[in-house]
Amino acid sequence: MTDPLILFMPSGKRGRFPEGTTVLEAARQLGVYVESVCGGRGICGRCQVEVQEGQFAKHGITSANDHLSPFGPKERRYAEKRDLKPGRRLSCSATITGDLVIDIPLDVQINAQIIRKAADTRVFERKPAVQLCYVEVEEPDMHKPLGDLDRIKAALETDWGFTDILVDPHIFPIVQSTLRKGGWAVTAAIHKDEDTGQASMIALWPGLHNEAWGIACDIGSTTIALHLVSLLSGHVIASAGTSNPQIRFGEDLMSRVSYVMMNPDGREAMTDAVRKAVDDLIGKVCEESGANRNDILDTVFVGNPIMHHLFLGIDPTELGGAPFALAVSGAIHTRARELALDANQGCRVYVIPCIAGHVGADAAAATLAEGPHRQDEMMLLVDVGTNAEIVLGNSKRVVAASSPTGPAFEGAEISCGQRAAPGAIERVRIDPETLEPRFKVIGSDLWSNEDGFADSVKTGITGICGSGIIEVVAEMYLAGIISEDGVVDGAMAAKSPRIIENGRTFSYVLNDGDPLITVTQNDVRAIQLAKAALYAGIKLLMDKQGIDHVDQIRFAGAFGSFIDPKYAMVLGLIPDCDLSKVSAVGNAAGTGARMALVNRDYRREIEETVRRIEKIETALEPKFQDHFVAAMALPNKTDPFPELAKAVKLPPKKALASGGEAGGAGRRRREGGRRARG
Amino acid sequence: MTDPLILFMPSGKRGRFPEGTTVLEAARQLGVYVESVCGGRGICGRCQVEVQEGQFAKHGITSANDHLSPFGPKERRYAEKRDLKPGRRLSCSATITGDLVIDIPLDVQINAQIIRKAADTRVFERKPAVQLCYVEVEEPDMHKPLGDLDRIKAALETDWGFTDILVDPHIFPIVQSTLRKGGWAVTAAIHKDEDTGQASMIALWPGLHNEAWGIACDIGSTTIALHLVSLLSGHVIASAGTSNPQIRFGEDLMSRVSYVMMNPDGREAMTDAVRKAVDDLIGKVCEESGANRNDILDTVFVGNPIMHHLFLGIDPTELGGAPFALAVSGAIHTRARELALDANQGCRVYVIPCIAGHVGADAAAATLAEGPHRQDEMMLLVDVGTNAEIVLGNSKRVVAASSPTGPAFEGAEISCGQRAAPGAIERVRIDPETLEPRFKVIGSDLWSNEDGFADSVKTGITGICGSGIIEVVAEMYLAGIISEDGVVDGAMAAKSPRIIENGRTFSYVLNDGDPLITVTQNDVRAIQLAKAALYAGIKLLMDKQGIDHVDQIRFAGAFGSFIDPKYAMVLGLIPDCDLSKVSAVGNAAGTGARMALVNRDYRREIEETVRRIEKIETALEPKFQDHFVAAMALPNKTDPFPELAKAVKLPPKKALASGGEAGGAGRRRREGGRRARG
Repeated sequence: MTDPLILFMPSGKRGRFPEGTTVLEAARQLGVYVESVCGGRGICGRCQVEVQEGQFAKHGITSANDHLSPFGPKERRYAEKRDLKPGRRLSCSATITGDLVIDIPLDVQINAQIIRKAADTRVFERKPAVQLCYVEVEEPDMHKPLGDLDRIKAALETDWGFTDILVDPHIFPIVQSTLRKGGWAVTAAIHKDEDTGQASMIALWPGLHNEAWGIACDIGSTTIALHLVSLLSGHVIASAGTSNPQIRFGEDLMSRVSYVMMNPDGREAMTDAVRKAVDDLIGKVCEESGANRNDILDTVFVGNPIMHHLFLGIDPTELGGAPFALAVSGAIHTRARELALDANQGCRVYVIPCIAGHVGADAAAATLAEGPHRQDEMMLLVDVGTNAEIVLGNSKRVVAASSPTGPAFEGAEISCGQRAAPGAIERVRIDPETLEPRFKVIGSDLWSNEDGFADSVKTGITGICGSGIIEVVAEMYLAGIISEDGVVDGAMAAKSPRIIENGRTFSYVLNDGDPLITVTQNDVRAIQLAKAALYAGIKLLMDKQGIDHVDQIRFAGAFGSFIDPKYAMVLGLIPDCDLSKVSAVGNAAGTGARMALVNRDYRREIEETVRRIEKIETALEPKFQDHFVAAMALPNKTDPFPELAKAVKLPPKKALASGGEAGGAGRRRREGGRRARG
Repeated sequence: MTDPLILFMPSGKRGRFPEGTTVLEAARQLGVYVESVCGGRGICGRCQVEVQEGQFAKHGITSANDHLSPFGPKERRYAEKRDLKPGRRLSCSATITGDLVIDIPLDVQINAQIIRKAADTRVFERKPAVQLCYVEVEEPDMHKPLGDLDRIKAALETDWGFTDILVDPHIFPIVQSTLRKGGWAVTAAIHKDEDTGQASMIALWPGLHNEAWGIACDIGSTTIALHLVSLLSGHVIASAGTSNPQIRFGEDLMSRVSYVMMNPDGREAMTDAVRKAVDDLIGKVCEESGANRNDILDTVFVGNPIMHHLFLGIDPTELGGAPFALAVSGAIHTRARELALDANQGCRVYVIPCIAGHVGADAAAATLAEGPHRQDEMMLLVDVGTNAEIVLGNSKRVVAASSPTGPAFEGAEISCGQRAAPGAIERVRIDPETLEPRFKVIGSDLWSNEDGFADSVKTGITGICGSGIIEVVAEMYLAGIISEDGVVDGAMAAKSPRIIENGRTFSYVLNDGDPLITVTQNDVRAIQLAKAALYAGIKLLMDKQGIDHVDQIRFAGAFGSFIDPKYAMVLGLIPDCDLSKVSAVGNAAGTGARMALVNRDYRREIEETVRRIEKIETALEPKFQDHFVAAMALPNKTDPFPELAKAVKLPPKKALASGGEAGGAGRRRREGGRRARG
């Protein structure tokens, strides 16, 4: 007779085990992560599982029924004292009596760990670097004078298999009182290093302690986003964001580097500012969720290289010029208290590796979240900021680069441009017949041609934000107002009063009221420069991959969340692609940080992936300049966009521009030089 | 043709290597520790060796001559810039051309590492936990954007074989400037954990850094002794000692525990006091030797359990009563800055394990130094303080206990007793015919019956110290003034006016001038109680070992250095033993600390030995009381002392004492209860 077959969902891992094996033991042997704080004593309730009724045939198990042992005394005791939902079992108590399909529920909620707000509904398989381990410890014995801490370590070895545990020094003075307060039982937090296997005791509580929190944080140049995550359930419990207070030292990254170079205490001031902002956010999420700072045991941080360096207290000056040398590129292990963060004294910090001098830990984290390296299809992952960080690859090969797009996509360098804020035009449509526009502004749900629009805009119309400028230029192109060379066609002035002369060139009047909002030839040129830089970077990576088509495109970051992929493609920010495979993925860097927080296998995965990624420095590639010049034009001129043509009627080719115009654009770019990184 | 044979002295390790192998490589392959900071570049000069001329036949090598390659360019360059003694070669440069005997010199002295003062002339084979590693690092390259630190780590892996190096966080901010200041060359200090093999980068200097210091420190209840040791040569460069400032909180250990129990901030105050004293001593040895605190990279501390706990910031209250539970017994790894010691920011701390609640890290270190576990002969190792720590064993088995001797051996509880200080009587002889004494006092080289004695004693005679009280009681016994039961024989008053009546008992007048110094019956009883406790502990351990004779006796600690072993044996502090095999070994605990500092193999050795040592709790052993009562008598009554009898004419047996006397002593002991531990 063969042993019973047990299948774990959602992982699908399966194996045969002798009758009488606990479900927890079977899970461990199969490498299925089931949380357990109490080590199988039936008191923590973390190891709950569900039996999938009637799911056997579906999973290829034919003859099965309720093949678990009856409710045992540990489960009865737990169910009496706590809340054990119907159908739930404690996997440390329930033993296998026949073939089974077991579901590992994602919502094991105990104590204060109620989910309030999820940044992203994705929940990842857990294997946290920090684990709570409850142990019962022998009382002191004069015949075996092993110290209190040494008996705790012995119990951790016997019950949990941890050997050669290093102990954080802050624990030494609290061992005696903690052990006695817990009646010779304690819960230890054990951190396990993925590379070396070194186990460290980082915190200690009397008796059973059933709370463990982690922080995942993306430090952006503009915004800092932070999530409080339960290390025991993997869920995001609270999220918070704030402006990066370093903005007062300089709006963009390069001006912050300049500030460091010019001021002796500049680096320290910016380090202090960003750390304090992070610490304040930690306070905020703790307050919101009722979590105790002292129960925060692990943290993961990501950021672009300059933010990464400043947060770690490293001078970023080297990143301001060639060879853009990172002080540290690999993953970093340190402690929260080294970074002046108020958490448990033993709280660990893990910083995801940077890919290159302009492609930071944020891009690495986004890569981890979106996983081009885990699939066969060729994925283009783009995070647009002052620089665009571009990753292109699949399971065979991944390449990465950054392109100096400049701040045009963020509304800067545009005559009526502004940051995304209430009053900014964010959506634009232009009637190709009448050339009349309609638009939406942030803060109102109405289009500008709808009744009540004016009243709905409390702030008034204030300008055009990044997504608005992309849409208006794209719509101008689709309406034939600008050629594929980007020249505003003065001949159209005859067709509509919206086309007005502006010195030697023409502008398009988007809002003819107050304020007057126009799109000038220079605005179009600024967008062309930015999009050409982005597209040239992408093209370069496509060359490296030897491909002329990408299977998927993912826009990461705030900018990517607001633009319409169709318009991005009309303008040629991105190459041709099936539009159904182009998506915005929001704060993918934050998601990657969360993954590395809840499962230490992801740390190894991203470290290995970053090592494998081929880093392309656009400044060193002669072809980048050629691609850049070619990409100044709008689609259909140089590259065919058949997928785009299915969704959008592209205008017929017509050449209007003078060579001088294009040359002028090239000159401007050279004068601008390498832009600030972001 | 067989490969040349190479033999390393003093280790005697030998092996055959192909011609052209460097001597350094051969040494490494044979496990012979040859220091090298620069990794074979011929610039640090640490790997110097000597060829033993004409020593081949003696070592069984018959056909050998100058079988090394001629002076190479690296050696010439080094010899020009620095001082390379005649006959010395750089083992990284010199290659094997034939059979050889190589001597690893112990005096490789470079830069400031001049030996000023050696606490102990023993020099131990080096294998320090912290090692300096010079590496030349690739310049940053935009094509391979590996961070500065990551390239340093890569070089450490290539050149020195260290993988998965963890980096101390204080290094992150200094990586860039250090690497550039050193012209893409740095020296890293790497700490290697013996248990886990984990390598950590703890310090970083530009270019070649050729200084690395360690601290070995024994924290005694009364005295703190500290040595500055070169981690590169293994030599003690400077030593310093000071009174333990905790004395102001209580003279003995138990009064310090009481202070902690009575005062809310008592523990903290005592922790601060001892740490400051250690830090001051570090300052003193650095000043004396010209060493830089920032070059102190590793430290080893030992102390009795209460000192151990207080130094680590642990409440020692539990050690004040049964079950005398240690908070931590195993070895401790921490950092100097966690203990408020000013050294390199990454400086490590290793604390040798404690054996039991009354047998501390000092006893473990003394065991490591004297090595009973490394030999076949049965060694008794005794450290007498307020408690006696006793270790008895050989390579087969080691047992340990502590005995509550009380402070009599330190001159306390004695009517004219005092601490060892100028003016204290330390040596005594009594003429067995006339019963007239002569004595020496601390501060004078003359005996009291020699001319000019009175003038030579500047302080005047002030009392009797520990060694003096032992000698006077032993001499009284040898002169027949007291019986083997310890009773001062009143009948002797007829023979000498030195025997005077004192209530119901008699006293002996040691100094009949000013001040009058007498040895009373109570004084003799106090010594009997103390020596009975010590002897009973030793007897108990001899029972456990199943032996009635020990091969060697070692007295560790200050007390052991001053007493004459013969008188210790006459009084029966220690069992009978060949007097030539009884020796004082000074601060063996400090020596053990030095060993663990210069060679990490000794850390593993003492950790394993402490685990193997059988801990005997005298309070739990019924036979201890029997042994104690029996040991109240002086030798020859119960136990035969044939070895002692060869050296000393023991008096004939005579019984004088009343049973009531002995009973009184037993009562006093019970009232005293368990004494403070030391």
